[in-house]
Amino acid sequence: MNRSTDMPTVNRRDLLGASVIGLGAGLAGMGAGALIERETSAPPAAGPDTAGLNGSRLEPFHGRHQAGVETSPQTHGLFLSLSLRPETDRSGVTRLLRLLTEDAARLTQGRAPLADPEPELAEDPARLTITFGFGRDLVARAGRRHVPDWLAPLPQFGIDRLRPELCRGDLLLQVCSDDPTTVAHAARMLLKDAEAFTRPAWQKAGFRRAYGSDPAGTTARNLFGQVDGTSNPAAGSADFARLVWGETGSGQQFGPRGAPPTDLATDYPDWLVGGTSLVLRDIAMNLDTWDEVDRPGREFSVGRSLSTGAPLTGEHEFDIPDLSATTEAGLKVISPVSHVARSRNVDEPAEQIHRRVYNYHSIPITGEVSEGGMMFASYQASIHRQFLPIQRRLDEADLLNAWTSPIGSTVWAIPPGCDAGDYIGSRLLEA
Amino acid sequence: MNRSTDMPTVNRRDLLGASVIGLGAGLAGMGAGALIERETSAPPAAGPDTAGLNGSRLEPFHGRHQAGVETSPQTHGLFLSLSLRPETDRSGVTRLLRLLTEDAARLTQGRAPLADPEPELAEDPARLTITFGFGRDLVARAGRRHVPDWLAPLPQFGIDRLRPELCRGDLLLQVCSDDPTTVAHAARMLLKDAEAFTRPAWQKAGFRRAYGSDPAGTTARNLFGQVDGTSNPAAGSADFARLVWGETGSGQQFGPRGAPPTDLATDYPDWLVGGTSLVLRDIAMNLDTWDEVDRPGREFSVGRSLSTGAPLTGEHEFDIPDLSATTEAGLKVISPVSHVARSRNVDEPAEQIHRRVYNYHSIPITGEVSEGGMMFASYQASIHRQFLPIQRRLDEADLLNAWTSPIGSTVWAIPPGCDAGDYIGSRLLEA
Repeated sequence: MNRSTDMPTVNRRDLLGASVIGLGAGLAGMGAGALIERETSAPPAAGPDTAGLNGSRLEPFHGRHQAGVETSPQTHGLFLSLSLRPETDRSGVTRLLRLLTEDAARLTQGRAPLADPEPELAEDPARLTITFGFGRDLVARAGRRHVPDWLAPLPQFGIDRLRPELCRGDLLLQVCSDDPTTVAHAARMLLKDAEAFTRPAWQKAGFRRAYGSDPAGTTARNLFGQVDGTSNPAAGSADFARLVWGETGSGQQFGPRGAPPTDLATDYPDWLVGGTSLVLRDIAMNLDTWDEVDRPGREFSVGRSLSTGAPLTGEHEFDIPDLSATTEAGLKVISPVSHVARSRNVDEPAEQIHRRVYNYHSIPITGEVSEGGMMFASYQASIHRQFLPIQRRLDEADLLNAWTSPIGSTVWAIPPGCDAGDYIGSRLLEA
Repeated sequence: MNRSTDMPTVNRRDLLGASVIGLGAGLAGMGAGALIERETSAPPAAGPDTAGLNGSRLEPFHGRHQAGVETSPQTHGLFLSLSLRPETDRSGVTRLLRLLTEDAARLTQGRAPLADPEPELAEDPARLTITFGFGRDLVARAGRRHVPDWLAPLPQFGIDRLRPELCRGDLLLQVCSDDPTTVAHAARMLLKDAEAFTRPAWQKAGFRRAYGSDPAGTTARNLFGQVDGTSNPAAGSADFARLVWGETGSGQQFGPRGAPPTDLATDYPDWLVGGTSLVLRDIAMNLDTWDEVDRPGREFSVGRSLSTGAPLTGEHEFDIPDLSATTEAGLKVISPVSHVARSRNVDEPAEQIHRRVYNYHSIPITGEVSEGGMMFASYQASIHRQFLPIQRRLDEADLLNAWTSPIGSTVWAIPPGCDAGDYIGSRLLEA
């Protein structure tokens, strides 16, 4: 299922309008019936024409894959990590996931959950997605004896400056929307229903360029000013499916050069087929010392032009970096220790990840360093074959390491999506 | 000067395009010349067509009034309070305000400050405004022996739960834009230039509905779900000018009924004419206990319908509340202790303020109470005649007080705007 922004999106109020007409004229059989199932008790007020407004745009909730991965990134992203309470057993996890799935299915379609005390705040989904991630302990709590080996903390890296309180959690809720009010309201509703079963472990809110600021398809910049995300696989492409969604046999095109083809999606239990893995790194960025570096020094460190994002051997953002090109003096144009050179493996096309990054920034009241950084969300079929080789190279040498420090790190299994009436995680819990 | 959204706005890239053409063809005399004055060293890259994008929309910086007051509220608002360093004298304050004015004049027009290390992040102003507020100590530091008596902490109210660290600061920078990346970048640039003269006292970031979520002109809701801001004077109206901008003689229409007319803008020194006053209250909202109240209980407390914002005696949001209407049982339809009843004084039309509210919300890791609330920004010509009578009544009785607590409170003089080449506060410093 393709959830990229190139897909036509559906206008919630159009649908609700259709369902109201359907009800009034007894035409519910025309297809609008499912939409009014369990409709909120507060019907939308007749208001001004909102057709075409971004606030009314919907991302589908149901489907083979969860939304919020292939979805073109929304402006705001909240990462909410929850720890299961000690008393939450397998039955509790089931009830929790049923509740949260119902909330998410409604909220993402612009409908308030039944117990929502502020249903009007649910009226502008603005492409809201709510994506569930499972940690190792949730899978164990669900009664599974086999937990995938990759669903565990990453190996310790030399660059890590991890804070234990940012590395916890059993259930991740990734809440993304183009509207910050929608994110706040959705997070609160989810948290209320999760409260009996979980406690918040940590939360981090981030942002990208606003809807309407840049032309659609513009690659976003991080707070270093870097164009960040150029080498992502294109949403909806066959590459995306192979690299991100863990379908059995999906990765066979990606054998190392000369070696027999292998499957990227190894150690995918049945309950995870159609899902993916998420490595979520909270990376502090020292904007103050970065500011001391001049523009050529920055471009040397990144290996790309800051203004266009083009590799230093190219002219345009999407030009392929030529890591062998040399200057007249015989030096590499793109330094072998630049970020671009270290993150690429030209011999292994499978070593590619799907980044979905959110920036954060606050101004500390004491001290000289801005609290800036990014929530680096990396989706890939295989952590072992895709994420880790890249991360190991960057850990060994990457000029950007001088200004960045991972302070939080978690790994999540992103289960597949579900159909209407089903819930996220049902295959895990009903084996 | 009318800065409401009804005004045509200017597209930055259109202007830059025009100025580039002007340069190339020697046509700078056609009016584009001023726009390229001190242009950033990093000209905008030739990119896709961005005409009409919200990211390119500009609010004027120069003019009789500062932007960010009458301006239709942008999605994101950052309130940044700075304390002058002990060694910052009158000459230091002058240099500080010159620097920050130059930064603000550029950033709001989509041009990076000269020393901006990430000039690309300045490319989408998205209606950026940067509004300066002066505290009592800054006026004294500027060498003024007379400081307006209202430029001081508010009287202590019974409802206050003030935290001293949220009540400090000598210079306020209110940074508002429809794009969160723009706010973060602008704040950082301002803070860098302010660093030699000031230290951050506190900061608070808030949000409203996103650009594009609701039809233009929709009154925003706060996190209680209330339609909030209905009784604001209309931007661009004569009422707005009389109630908000402190022009000598501006308030003479607003004498109490039967009393001789008086001037709202009393105790406005020469350097403040054309400005206004800002009361900024950080109001914590207990969303958890508010959630325990049913809908009729909430509407009784507010005095308005939650779904439409209409007063309980009316049908539409802008209907005038009828505070004398009674039910068949002889009870008031709008409770005399409801928020609406307590905040209105039908005998004193001058008792009206201009609210420009930003919500905030975070999920605490421990404890049961969401950290939700609002930055309540109230602009008015006279704190004594407009803000305080309303606040005193609400302090005495307002059902909403059960769920709200002011935790921060500051008062600011908002000086007038300035023309190109001048700086904000020049009349204060060059007497």
